[in-house]
Amino acid sequence: MPQFADRVAKAQRSFIREILKVTADPSVISFAGGLPNPAAFPVPEIAAAAAKVLYEAGPSALQYSTTEGFLPLREWIAARYKKRMDMDVKPSDILITTGSQQALDLVAKVIVNAGDTVVMEKPGYLGAIQAFTIFRPAWRSVPLEDDGPDLDALDRALDGAKLFYAVTSFQNPSGLSYSEKKRAAVADLLRKHGTFFLEDDPYGELRFKGQALPPVFKQRREHSMLLGTFSKVAAPGFRLGWIVATGDIMERLVIAKQAADLHTGSLDQMIVHQFLADNDFEAHVARIRDLYGAQCKTMQAAIAEHFPANVRVTAPEGGMFLWVTLPEGVSATELLKRSVDCKVAFVPGAAFYVDGTGENTLRLNFSNADTESIREGIKRLGACIKACLADGPKACQGA
Amino acid sequence: MPQFADRVAKAQRSFIREILKVTADPSVISFAGGLPNPAAFPVPEIAAAAAKVLYEAGPSALQYSTTEGFLPLREWIAARYKKRMDMDVKPSDILITTGSQQALDLVAKVIVNAGDTVVMEKPGYLGAIQAFTIFRPAWRSVPLEDDGPDLDALDRALDGAKLFYAVTSFQNPSGLSYSEKKRAAVADLLRKHGTFFLEDDPYGELRFKGQALPPVFKQRREHSMLLGTFSKVAAPGFRLGWIVATGDIMERLVIAKQAADLHTGSLDQMIVHQFLADNDFEAHVARIRDLYGAQCKTMQAAIAEHFPANVRVTAPEGGMFLWVTLPEGVSATELLKRSVDCKVAFVPGAAFYVDGTGENTLRLNFSNADTESIREGIKRLGACIKACLADGPKACQGA
Repeated sequence: MPQFADRVAKAQRSFIREILKVTADPSVISFAGGLPNPAAFPVPEIAAAAAKVLYEAGPSALQYSTTEGFLPLREWIAARYKKRMDMDVKPSDILITTGSQQALDLVAKVIVNAGDTVVMEKPGYLGAIQAFTIFRPAWRSVPLEDDGPDLDALDRALDGAKLFYAVTSFQNPSGLSYSEKKRAAVADLLRKHGTFFLEDDPYGELRFKGQALPPVFKQRREHSMLLGTFSKVAAPGFRLGWIVATGDIMERLVIAKQAADLHTGSLDQMIVHQFLADNDFEAHVARIRDLYGAQCKTMQAAIAEHFPANVRVTAPEGGMFLWVTLPEGVSATELLKRSVDCKVAFVPGAAFYVDGTGENTLRLNFSNADTESIREGIKRLGACIKACLADGPKACQGA
Repeated sequence: MPQFADRVAKAQRSFIREILKVTADPSVISFAGGLPNPAAFPVPEIAAAAAKVLYEAGPSALQYSTTEGFLPLREWIAARYKKRMDMDVKPSDILITTGSQQALDLVAKVIVNAGDTVVMEKPGYLGAIQAFTIFRPAWRSVPLEDDGPDLDALDRALDGAKLFYAVTSFQNPSGLSYSEKKRAAVADLLRKHGTFFLEDDPYGELRFKGQALPPVFKQRREHSMLLGTFSKVAAPGFRLGWIVATGDIMERLVIAKQAADLHTGSLDQMIVHQFLADNDFEAHVARIRDLYGAQCKTMQAAIAEHFPANVRVTAPEGGMFLWVTLPEGVSATELLKRSVDCKVAFVPGAAFYVDGTGENTLRLNFSNADTESIREGIKRLGACIKACLADGPKACQGA
């Protein structure tokens, strides 16, 4: 029997995607997925945009197109950075990708040799861990505090490292954001060490509290790449993301993209551009922000009511996730087995750690459940946690 | 300055894509691209399908979906293999990919360690060469004869090789097809050597002459993968392809696909499925076949009239390409420099060879030019070739 490549010999399916199969049962209240709320998808506007593009552009909307992406869409993205962040980005600095998951694959391909050190946040985004794992890095990870990474730990971790990957606003999975002060400090440390930097910003538009902050990328652009996506502000089914980068990095990313899928769907890019051109995007995003802000608040209130006091929970200012830390020694994987019996699901946190820790943590998604389900689900989960703790630490310890 | 990964340190942009930029000048008649004819794109039918999907499925057409792909589309593909080839394929044996270019990336990722031997056809498909090159194989190549590979050479090349990649019908770039006899012989050789086999079949539906033949995959399924695409029978702008595979191979491809882009566009998959469900696909494909058959015939007639007798040309029974072999010692790269001055373009063949040969060959695309352009372009190209030959071999030799 011929042998597979070493890079996938031990690869495993996404744990989250496997949990999602369990939660297909409609009686289970699921906080496990990372799905945007479909109630916020602009379906009639997308239908109008699709009709217009196919009527006006005709066959050219269905033909092969350039690897770099649809120019008017890249122009819109560049203008948006200027407007939101006063950040100068040229359309030619933007490469459209097939979702930002593809951006992770391309960056890993272009930067990471087997054995190179990649620095992750702790906890860190699972999709990035999976994309990088294929290219077999050596991992280091840096603990996240409430206002961003532990700077001393980051300084140590960056020493000799190839790449630092960070989700700086409303992080998946923790919901935490880097403060203005820590953004500046991270930029300084990246300059000090000369490390490649990959900043992922899928949720930046979804701030429902506090003051918008520009990405670290704005302060340290050399050797840096910034990712964005339309998945959370338009719809994820398009698979439309982008990379901001320049010079040699961009040149190599384009080459890798050509080899990976030639280009991202022409029609998808044109539909989303038409949707952006014909609608009030600010108003649309404000509706999503209000919705998620209300859902987050509902979940926080339910947690305050139903979770024991020794369970810690983050306080996100945006995004889609809350992060829960159970008392030391309690296993969220064991808790999940119980909670599925009580018809409520979440993602145990260990999968977000590259160092094998995090067993007493878990992720809760608040964007894709209605108010009633959030209240009822958190009530059930609170009861499960209490039962676990009441049974004594051994009952809910992992193997 | 931090260093890029070894796999892209020497990577280059697609030579064809660079040539395509030259041919943006509308006065240049281009046989360089590999584009399907947009006149054959079913634009109104796609518009109707898009409207229907968004109206009927609503938000679920825009949400994240499964990595494996949209089940009704996979069922359609499976049924099509049964109907066309009497081949049993289960929907679960089909993984939808973001164009078949992504399939090449995924297969390379899953199979090829740096230094593993990959066997290519000679000439071979450039997109595959690019996708595999990222994973740094050792190349071997096997000459193509009019009815398929040189079997003795293939037998030698497969010895100790990891993977054989082949386009068995109306190959890109040569237009050549494997005969029934050679298909059986190739299946035997693959069984003898136990090599992974990747059969790429983007053009199989586009046979305008002769008898349809089942893929080699039908005879040797173990360790084998078969690729297909909607790019040539619906439209390439969707980026919709697929891989047929089973067991452990499929399991690893799904894992690699999750890490590469989570899944292929939900809306694209649903639109194409709706188009297939609501229209007479046989009639649609027959129109494309007739169109390309007529264009091929026009090009062949013009070549017979205008090319010197010592230039050899293949006689394809389908697909989109003709392959030209100039007299030994004449460089197609040099010829291109002259022909661009005469406002006609093609792709020099050397890029399709992994062994540095093929300098006297070139590819002509006949699918994406109208009758008048084909006649005029071939006339111009014939004059260029004659001028080259008249100037003596030195004038058109490469450096």
